[in-house]
Amino acid sequence: MRLAELSARSGVSTATIKFYLREGLLPPGRRVTATQSDYDEGHLRRLRLVRALIQVGRIPVASARDVLAALADDRLSPNERLGTATWALPHGPAPDETDPAVEAARHTADELMDRLGWGRGSTADPLPTAPARGTLVTAIAALSRLGYPCSAEDLEPYGRAAERIAATDLDMVERYGTPDEQVEAAVALTVLYEPVVLSLRRLAAVEESHRRFVEE
Amino acid sequence: MRLAELSARSGVSTATIKFYLREGLLPPGRRVTATQSDYDEGHLRRLRLVRALIQVGRIPVASARDVLAALADDRLSPNERLGTATWALPHGPAPDETDPAVEAARHTADELMDRLGWGRGSTADPLPTAPARGTLVTAIAALSRLGYPCSAEDLEPYGRAAERIAATDLDMVERYGTPDEQVEAAVALTVLYEPVVLSLRRLAAVEESHRRFVEE
Repeated sequence: MRLAELSARSGVSTATIKFYLREGLLPPGRRVTATQSDYDEGHLRRLRLVRALIQVGRIPVASARDVLAALADDRLSPNERLGTATWALPHGPAPDETDPAVEAARHTADELMDRLGWGRGSTADPLPTAPARGTLVTAIAALSRLGYPCSAEDLEPYGRAAERIAATDLDMVERYGTPDEQVEAAVALTVLYEPVVLSLRRLAAVEESHRRFVEE
Repeated sequence: MRLAELSARSGVSTATIKFYLREGLLPPGRRVTATQSDYDEGHLRRLRLVRALIQVGRIPVASARDVLAALADDRLSPNERLGTATWALPHGPAPDETDPAVEAARHTADELMDRLGWGRGSTADPLPTAPARGTLVTAIAALSRLGYPCSAEDLEPYGRAAERIAATDLDMVERYGTPDEQVEAAVALTVLYEPVVLSLRRLAAVEESHRRFVEE
């Protein structure tokens, strides 16, 4: 398809598509004349992912480029591409090693992983170095510093709920046909379901606090 | 206690405490001389909450002021104060009513609430107007617009996981002694556990995708 059709089918303006092409967020089309290129379904899908990352996830262009580079690296298996792409997503702040609460928080996070049985899959398991592990340590340290300390035991139910969410996420992803499509969908859904999870938590809190404090 | 002790016990500098006092985020102490005031445990607790909102939650000062005003409104029951304070927290974008995907998304959100049995507690139930409901509708509309549509049935497992998280949140809150302390803790934990939930989801995804795509 030509640029105009790609724009019509994706709902993204031609100016924005040209910007994405220039920034390397979208691979170039197949050149048919000096001024025209041809785009395919792969471009349409990629455009969908770029919009998910940038417009909804508010991810900086440079990070989005890293995410997409990981997806395009065909030396990696689909699982490795997914891991690398997810790691390139922006994360919360890394732990501040000068904060005395961080060492204890790291210990709590390690104990939590043990309780949950996470990271036992293989010796090459990337879990200990995943950036989300750093975000978790930072969050545990902040809780303790602010006077709301929590133990690995306290956190275990959150981990169990997260397991259920991740299983549902991957059930969704498996609906997509090819491994390439699955990996793209997995990255998009990682970002797009964050507001779903957080808003449902707040709504569930209204419901649960009504049940505990009003009905009884 | 005097300002210097409040600063030492909270780990917040006297300059920052004075800023919070000036901005109305911390109630004034009991004046003892023309230049000195006396602060109590309530100030220490409030300071903890203000830091949770502003330093960790990165909530604007004006929103934090609204949250704290709701907590101080003693015409309301603890549950109402909690609701009002939580509603004053920043939320994701409200639905764009000019987006044709929004009406369908609102219908999906309504059907999801029905499936989950949420909002049946009372005719005065605030769930339909909670700002998190708007965030949910916006997120569902974005998923559909970007080519990753989801049904109420797809979303139900996320709602069940959210119920489990909310129950754990409130178990934590009930450890705090008085209703005032509980409401303050509930607001702080709403904000402080968001990065915990999101980072655990990402770690659980690494674990689950390893299990599905590597081990088999």
